[in-house]
Amino acid sequence: MGRIRTSLLTVGIASLIGISFVFGSRGALGKSAGERSADRDAIRAVLTAQDAAWNRGDVDAFLVGYWHSPELTFSGSSGVSRGWDGVLARYKKVYPDRATMGELDTSELEIRFLGPDAALVLGKWHLKREKGDIGGVFTLVFQRFPDGWKIIHDHTSAVPANP
Amino acid sequence: MGRIRTSLLTVGIASLIGISFVFGSRGALGKSAGERSADRDAIRAVLTAQDAAWNRGDVDAFLVGYWHSPELTFSGSSGVSRGWDGVLARYKKVYPDRATMGELDTSELEIRFLGPDAALVLGKWHLKREKGDIGGVFTLVFQRFPDGWKIIHDHTSAVPANP
Repeated sequence: MGRIRTSLLTVGIASLIGISFVFGSRGALGKSAGERSADRDAIRAVLTAQDAAWNRGDVDAFLVGYWHSPELTFSGSSGVSRGWDGVLARYKKVYPDRATMGELDTSELEIRFLGPDAALVLGKWHLKREKGDIGGVFTLVFQRFPDGWKIIHDHTSAVPANP
Repeated sequence: MGRIRTSLLTVGIASLIGISFVFGSRGALGKSAGERSADRDAIRAVLTAQDAAWNRGDVDAFLVGYWHSPELTFSGSSGVSRGWDGVLARYKKVYPDRATMGELDTSELEIRFLGPDAALVLGKWHLKREKGDIGGVFTLVFQRFPDGWKIIHDHTSAVPANP
């Protein structure tokens, strides 16, 4: 019985070492809780800056949150728009003036990290407009670049207020 | 004692899984083209199995491609469905019978890796139905688990044929 207990304790201690190793390794990827918190703040800051740009009618500044690449993608009910220029053109076509743009509010952000340099962000968007409010949900995939976190893919859906 | 032994064993097994996972991840950081090719094949196989399950009317088998977790999310024009049970319930509500399910074809897959154990997958879906075809685009986020690649988030939109 003593022997079983000792061997079980050995397994237990080895397990704890294993667990520390696992957590240590995850930390070694460069992601302590503090660093993740900084990453979350950086991602939130991108979206806050986008809201502010949108609400002063500056679509070009809004686009700064996106990866400036021909590989950028935006999916929605009109299919897939491709490249930074394509996504900018889509925004300018769908939202040609301030009245159509309205006042943007993004909320209920959920940030999940997918690795050291990537994150999945879910949230809700709402446009307050005299011509009628619209809103819905978005899925953003962020990637970390030397100049910060950028959206590499956006999938946005309108959700009817009374479906 | 039985309980302690079980819990120690559980911790031990969890640690071993954790260690394998970490070593797997480390290997993955230096992923060779061959390993990435195997990952792409594994991800495509999940979607091929989903198509096959759908086309024999087996929604439960279709759901096997998704992460079996309360944290699974599905976004679309009805907002966000949460958890494996919630996503299953949504599918069964929206597609209550074979005629509504139709014949699924997924195409134009684009797979981008976001880290050693995560991938972003874009593609198109089409349902051939006597009552009228529908289709659109999807965004899937895959994560690698000990039992393989699973969808942890799905954002699907219908794209009208003649918008």
